[in-house]
Amino acid sequence: MSETDLPQFPNARDAVRSLRASQIREVANAGFGVPDVLPFWFGESDRVTPPFIRDAASAALSAGATFYTHNLGIAPLRETLARYVSTLHGPTSVEHVAVTSAGVNALMLAAQLVVGAGDRVVAVTPLWPNLVEIPKILGAHVETVSLVYGANGWQLDLERLLAALTPDTKLLMLNSPNNPTGWVMSRDEQRAVLEHCRRLGIWIVADEVYERLYYAGEPGQSAPSFLDLAGRDERVICVNSFSKAWLMTGWRLGWIVAPASLMDDLGKLVEYNTSCAPAFVQQAGIAAIEQGGQFTRELVGELRVSRDHLVGALSALPGVDVKAPPGAMYVFFSLPGASRSLDLCKALVREAGLGLAPGSAFGPEGEGFVRWCYACDTARLDAGVARLKDYLARY
Amino acid sequence: MSETDLPQFPNARDAVRSLRASQIREVANAGFGVPDVLPFWFGESDRVTPPFIRDAASAALSAGATFYTHNLGIAPLRETLARYVSTLHGPTSVEHVAVTSAGVNALMLAAQLVVGAGDRVVAVTPLWPNLVEIPKILGAHVETVSLVYGANGWQLDLERLLAALTPDTKLLMLNSPNNPTGWVMSRDEQRAVLEHCRRLGIWIVADEVYERLYYAGEPGQSAPSFLDLAGRDERVICVNSFSKAWLMTGWRLGWIVAPASLMDDLGKLVEYNTSCAPAFVQQAGIAAIEQGGQFTRELVGELRVSRDHLVGALSALPGVDVKAPPGAMYVFFSLPGASRSLDLCKALVREAGLGLAPGSAFGPEGEGFVRWCYACDTARLDAGVARLKDYLARY
Repeated sequence: MSETDLPQFPNARDAVRSLRASQIREVANAGFGVPDVLPFWFGESDRVTPPFIRDAASAALSAGATFYTHNLGIAPLRETLARYVSTLHGPTSVEHVAVTSAGVNALMLAAQLVVGAGDRVVAVTPLWPNLVEIPKILGAHVETVSLVYGANGWQLDLERLLAALTPDTKLLMLNSPNNPTGWVMSRDEQRAVLEHCRRLGIWIVADEVYERLYYAGEPGQSAPSFLDLAGRDERVICVNSFSKAWLMTGWRLGWIVAPASLMDDLGKLVEYNTSCAPAFVQQAGIAAIEQGGQFTRELVGELRVSRDHLVGALSALPGVDVKAPPGAMYVFFSLPGASRSLDLCKALVREAGLGLAPGSAFGPEGEGFVRWCYACDTARLDAGVARLKDYLARY
Repeated sequence: MSETDLPQFPNARDAVRSLRASQIREVANAGFGVPDVLPFWFGESDRVTPPFIRDAASAALSAGATFYTHNLGIAPLRETLARYVSTLHGPTSVEHVAVTSAGVNALMLAAQLVVGAGDRVVAVTPLWPNLVEIPKILGAHVETVSLVYGANGWQLDLERLLAALTPDTKLLMLNSPNNPTGWVMSRDEQRAVLEHCRRLGIWIVADEVYERLYYAGEPGQSAPSFLDLAGRDERVICVNSFSKAWLMTGWRLGWIVAPASLMDDLGKLVEYNTSCAPAFVQQAGIAAIEQGGQFTRELVGELRVSRDHLVGALSALPGVDVKAPPGAMYVFFSLPGASRSLDLCKALVREAGLGLAPGSAFGPEGEGFVRWCYACDTARLDAGVARLKDYLARY
């Protein structure tokens, strides 16, 4: 190639250029300059992290926790996590637990562990785009199996999923409770999928970051987890995060539960990705789990109130089809105009000051819907619903 | 594949299993249980991050900076970095700067931007293993070109490097000032390599995290950088970190300077790797740069004193060949027994309580040497040298 053949402005490789950009950000950009937008588009509470967690980080900073840590995390946090996971899902020892630099970083590490160029990956959609895009960075092919929307909300077509999990499939990526639909995979569905994957040697990466945001069981109960069914040394990697249950989105702290036989290789990958999570952030993670039980239970109670309030208010609007989802912190609903959800969301932010996420941001299977994050108080939700009502009345 | 064909304990894919594990950690493990080890093996100062930086993080936590940030970093930090880079290396605007979750994370992102499966990458060694291993995670092939050790210390064989940079090469990875050797690439060498890579369309990823730890110029001056020569929209990606110049190893904060035409794609990759660096960590980064100029200059002065002190003390030992390197914070020297440097370093920690890094940890080209990090006071260096002297006297 000669100098003159080269493009004037260099580009990333094709696999990266073809990764999806965030449609939520596209909507937010469309609202640039609009005063007084009410944003419900991000997957984030409007509340600051509780003081006892922030104080723990500041105390660790004062105490000088500013050095590198072990790749897999500081021992006290791994021990705390092992106890926490054991309480929720049965005996889990430290050698099955690793600390990561966010839940999404845990997903990237899990993908790096098991998939390379040309591998076949299956994902259940609509889905937070990150799970679908991460394997593509590694050169893998991702097939999607869509949930089905019906009278009971979003449901899995189990037969279709099992049929897609062919012998040449390397990895199944699942997210339950699900972003954006709030779908929660049942214990029976998990069992059927696990047995199928066991038989064919297919890895399961389960993104369970919303497991505590579950409204169908006893207060504080976790959603069904693959950790309840699978042995700790099976081909199952469970990914979790401090972001949702302790309001720590901006901290970038997560963890992985995986076979002990993967841990040496996972340690190498952590070294080559971020080396470790910040030392004082890990200390804050200990405080979150050890002192945060009551906080999380109250948070889930508040989220349930917000969910029910929003579902009730949206149900009263003409042309809106909405059902109360059993998990996560989103209502994923259809309304007039949502068949072109990106255009609708851009219009909503520009013309009504209402910030929602378009369903198409979560794959073509999400088209026709919009996502509303209800992690805020009911007054704010009411203000948003009033804007939507006015907008719909105009069209 | 049937269930019975599967191994009992699942493994990571072959490309990951064959990644190098840290030989430094292997040496540290060999010293497990040895009381009173003097560790000089890690690339880290023994001093805590200065208070003005820790205080900035705590203040940001108090102020509630606990939310997601823009993928490319908060605007004030990007602006601060653009000013800082402009002062050191000429005009650089915000759209050429992105914040990352550590310097190593910046290297991973840079590699993801430009290399995929089957691509040819060239790296100059001995070298911090991360630069060589990261492309392999993406399925790339890495060829190495060794520095040459002679009367003037480690030097580049420019002709050999240019010959290795064939038309089918996608990426050159360089680290200057270099870990472990302290080698600093000259301006003329950079110019020749840049012109060659321009002609063939080869990307350059320059790991310049030690640029401020440079002892051959005026106090506080940076080592020669590709940013001094290259236009901001050329195929050059410069990686940097807060770890070394502000003693922020445990914070995991870095940055990238790259063509503006890459930034949208880089933002996607950040989203899929860590989404952002923690918000309050980014605030601390602003304090580091805006208030840390004097701190860094003093630090470099102290490191120079430590370097000269250590080189002088080691020179007096029998059989030791050591030269003062012009950059970074390591002395990479040969001594009796170092032809099997891993064994030697294990013996040193077990029998002398002295923690050094084996040269072979930095590639086969580093065999015959050991690395000593001198980022500590001279009394501690003297204690280490006394242990080495005793050990050598016994053999």
